[in-house]
Amino acid sequence: MNAPEASVLRDTILAAKAAGLRLANLSSPQRRALLEALAEAFEEPQMQSAIIAGNRLDLDLARDAEKEGELASALVNRLSIDAKKIATLCDGLRQMSRAPEVVGQQLTNRLLDDNLLLKRITCPLGVLGVVFEARPDALVQITGLALKSGNAVILKGGKEALNTNRALCVVIHKVLAAHNIDVRAVVLIEDRAGVAELLKQNDLVDLMIARGSSQFVHYVRDNTSIPVMAHADGICHVYLHRDADANKAARIAVDAKTSYPAACNTVETLLWDANAPVALDSAINALLAANVQVRGCEATRARHPKIVAATEADWDTEYGELIISVKQVADLDEALAHIARHGSRHTEAIITQDQAAADRFLAEVDAACCFHNASTRFSDGYRFGLGAEVGISTDKLHARGPVGVEGLVTYRWLLSGDGQITTEYGEGKKSYLHKDL
Amino acid sequence: MNAPEASVLRDTILAAKAAGLRLANLSSPQRRALLEALAEAFEEPQMQSAIIAGNRLDLDLARDAEKEGELASALVNRLSIDAKKIATLCDGLRQMSRAPEVVGQQLTNRLLDDNLLLKRITCPLGVLGVVFEARPDALVQITGLALKSGNAVILKGGKEALNTNRALCVVIHKVLAAHNIDVRAVVLIEDRAGVAELLKQNDLVDLMIARGSSQFVHYVRDNTSIPVMAHADGICHVYLHRDADANKAARIAVDAKTSYPAACNTVETLLWDANAPVALDSAINALLAANVQVRGCEATRARHPKIVAATEADWDTEYGELIISVKQVADLDEALAHIARHGSRHTEAIITQDQAAADRFLAEVDAACCFHNASTRFSDGYRFGLGAEVGISTDKLHARGPVGVEGLVTYRWLLSGDGQITTEYGEGKKSYLHKDL
Repeated sequence: MNAPEASVLRDTILAAKAAGLRLANLSSPQRRALLEALAEAFEEPQMQSAIIAGNRLDLDLARDAEKEGELASALVNRLSIDAKKIATLCDGLRQMSRAPEVVGQQLTNRLLDDNLLLKRITCPLGVLGVVFEARPDALVQITGLALKSGNAVILKGGKEALNTNRALCVVIHKVLAAHNIDVRAVVLIEDRAGVAELLKQNDLVDLMIARGSSQFVHYVRDNTSIPVMAHADGICHVYLHRDADANKAARIAVDAKTSYPAACNTVETLLWDANAPVALDSAINALLAANVQVRGCEATRARHPKIVAATEADWDTEYGELIISVKQVADLDEALAHIARHGSRHTEAIITQDQAAADRFLAEVDAACCFHNASTRFSDGYRFGLGAEVGISTDKLHARGPVGVEGLVTYRWLLSGDGQITTEYGEGKKSYLHKDL
Repeated sequence: MNAPEASVLRDTILAAKAAGLRLANLSSPQRRALLEALAEAFEEPQMQSAIIAGNRLDLDLARDAEKEGELASALVNRLSIDAKKIATLCDGLRQMSRAPEVVGQQLTNRLLDDNLLLKRITCPLGVLGVVFEARPDALVQITGLALKSGNAVILKGGKEALNTNRALCVVIHKVLAAHNIDVRAVVLIEDRAGVAELLKQNDLVDLMIARGSSQFVHYVRDNTSIPVMAHADGICHVYLHRDADANKAARIAVDAKTSYPAACNTVETLLWDANAPVALDSAINALLAANVQVRGCEATRARHPKIVAATEADWDTEYGELIISVKQVADLDEALAHIARHGSRHTEAIITQDQAAADRFLAEVDAACCFHNASTRFSDGYRFGLGAEVGISTDKLHARGPVGVEGLVTYRWLLSGDGQITTEYGEGKKSYLHKDL
């Protein structure tokens, strides 16, 4: 939709909600067939050409903007889509098709009394709002996850991918229509004004998923009463314990910092035990060799005088680029305290050969992901084996950490009786059986 | 604490958080022993006397207030505690002690690669804030649930129960101290100013549970960025389908309306199919005989001219007393549409002998609890067999409907490796195993 008026968008979301009910009640074979058909449609040569043509338009606009210094080249790379990327997306859709059903799963089956049966059954949330970065494959993955979980979805992708996203939605709508599902089960919003309207529909939209900059996530959280699933910040630490292996320290520090500096699971601060100078030296030398700017506390600079001095602000900074701050701590206690104060509850790692220290770190750090001798960058739905990832949540309620399709369902309690009333039960009257079947 | 200053309360919550970590890491036998010891302590004659003395003080104040018309007699009844109520509470604590552990449960155990093991383990939320009505047994139940789930808890009970709550907390603190746990794991806030302060501690408090009036729940939601678990409204419907059994319609309508009119799972509106006049008559006559004020739409009043006329506002009103609104609908579709528009996603019931109609109602109503031929009043943690109930949530994320102890835990992803980095994996490199053990 272009420049949606409030009432138009609201009507569309009402239609999405109704379409969602149809998605919710698809049989398992129907849902599989729908995802399979989506993969097939994306493989049709005519559809591929249309998508790639749309993408070329976006890329040309992006390259023009880039020349004017407006767009990072990393963004242009993420923006592009070709036959190979499409084939990967189709693989993903087929994997989702084959994956176990998440809708209609029985969680409880309990006889409260004769002929009074309580079931708890998973169901979709209803209508999802998803705002995501300029990465067209995200649109396909999110749509697949929404269909797999039986949710309608209102999508808003990065504006740089608009033409690609339009072409992708043509394919999706064609498949929905062929399966007798209102195409408004998947809605593409095309501008920021639409997002502002979307955020007001708290009686229709069940979950907002916000991906993108920390600033944008804060904007979403501050401007809606719809529940938001997001990670606003990703301030992750790697702690070199006094029994850290120097080689692992270097490998993990470099991977955690450099393999994708803009990612939320990238390390921002390296903590080192005062008794782990060898591991520290190994990590710092490897980071410097990988062109990382290292900013150190006084104790760190006492060993490595050439590095930049860190300020207090560094301990709360998500750099998003090849910069890392380094701080000495006295011991595990001080590392835990620093992480509790400055971490964003995303991913925290300890490097140590001491199992007891690792056990304590994993037991006591309050974060979605707590790692021992592994890079923080493993914190990812695909790497965790969740299939496609909706996003990473640093909230504690509902899904936590990397969120796959299971994070897009809830449940309902269904009770079937033959006329029972509560005043029949109680002291001196009938008792509940509470028998799990 | 009396009239807590911001900094004092914050320091106390910081201590609660630290104490919570200790609770989180209790072994299963330790946790069981703690709950058992709590039950034993409440049974000690000296402790019972102190509690009952505190309660007598509250009751005297309440009765004085009642004479001045300030307090409903139902509140005075809920407020009282005696040896029998204490025995019931101790039974509840022992049941919790024996119930399966909810902390430290393994949800995922997946080998990502050789020596790279991913576990997903349940853990407490951390610090709970619970604001609840003037019912002293609630304090004991909530404390039991918090200890069972390894959470620290900041409690604020109805002010009418203050002396009772103080006496109960003396017992709780004695038991915590005897188990070498900082007594600030369970904190009693004594005034509304403390609640206002509590709601500001969004970096320390992980979940606010708000019980009480709809107005109060809205106040909590509007004044905190801490996640809130609550039901703000309970507008529940009973729908008499055209194949409704007239006897069941009458029994269920009366139970759902009269067994506890102030409860959130009480029915507010009776919908009747135009083809179910006999069931309607049966229900209305029974409701009138039970002294319920019936407010009807025009079609209802055409059959029952003596009842009061309902206005549009009635369809959105939670009466909290012996009043019910009655509306004719053309069919199941219209019933579903009315519920979608006016229901509060709490509990909805259909009365019918037609299984297909019941199946459709249970499949399509978007509410935490959907019932067939059973009273809406069954929507309750105890009746559902959840043990003690934290509250009822009408949100879709996290726990939904009646919430037991399972709603007070989350999980963390724990990854243990021996130095793995993400850049080792990918096309032409190592592959993930993703093998569930």
